[in-house]
Amino acid sequence: MKATVTVMLKTGVLDPQGEAVKSALGALGFAGVDAVRQGKVIELDLEETDAAAAEAAVTEMCDKLLANTVIESYRIEIA
Amino acid sequence: MKATVTVMLKTGVLDPQGEAVKSALGALGFAGVDAVRQGKVIELDLEETDAAAAEAAVTEMCDKLLANTVIESYRIEIA
Repeated sequence: MKATVTVMLKTGVLDPQGEAVKSALGALGFAGVDAVRQGKVIELDLEETDAAAAEAAVTEMCDKLLANTVIESYRIEIA
Repeated sequence: MKATVTVMLKTGVLDPQGEAVKSALGALGFAGVDAVRQGKVIELDLEETDAAAAEAAVTEMCDKLLANTVIESYRIEIA
C-alpha cells in the first residue's frame, strides 16, 4: 500500500520557512497572499496490504520518527 | 481561497532525505517499508476568490519560486 504523511507545524507555532516564502512571493510581485505555511510530505511504499494495519504502522512511525508531535501535527492518507 | 502545493522530486532523481528516513525506520524496527520519498507541502491563503485565477497564479508561483522544475514536480489543489 502507499501511505502519504503530511506534517505541518501546529497552529500558533512560528513558521520561518512559510514567512520566508511569503516575503519572497511579495518581492516577486505576487500580491494577495495572506499567509503561507510550509510543511513536509512523506510518501511511503509499504508491503502491508491491509489498510487498517498500514495506518496503524504509519501512525507509530509518525509518533516515533516522522513528526515532532510537540510542535507538529500530521495527517495520514492510505491509498 | 486556500491553495495546497505539493512539491516532490521527480522520479529518478536521488532523494537523500527519503533514503535517510527509510534507513531510520529500518533501524527503529519498522519492516516492510519498500521506498520512501520526501517532499514539501506549501499551504497558501489567497485573497483571490476565483478558483481558475487562483490556480493560474499559484502555477506561476510554482514555476518562479516554489519548485525547481528541473528536478521537482508539483501538484496544486485549490479549495
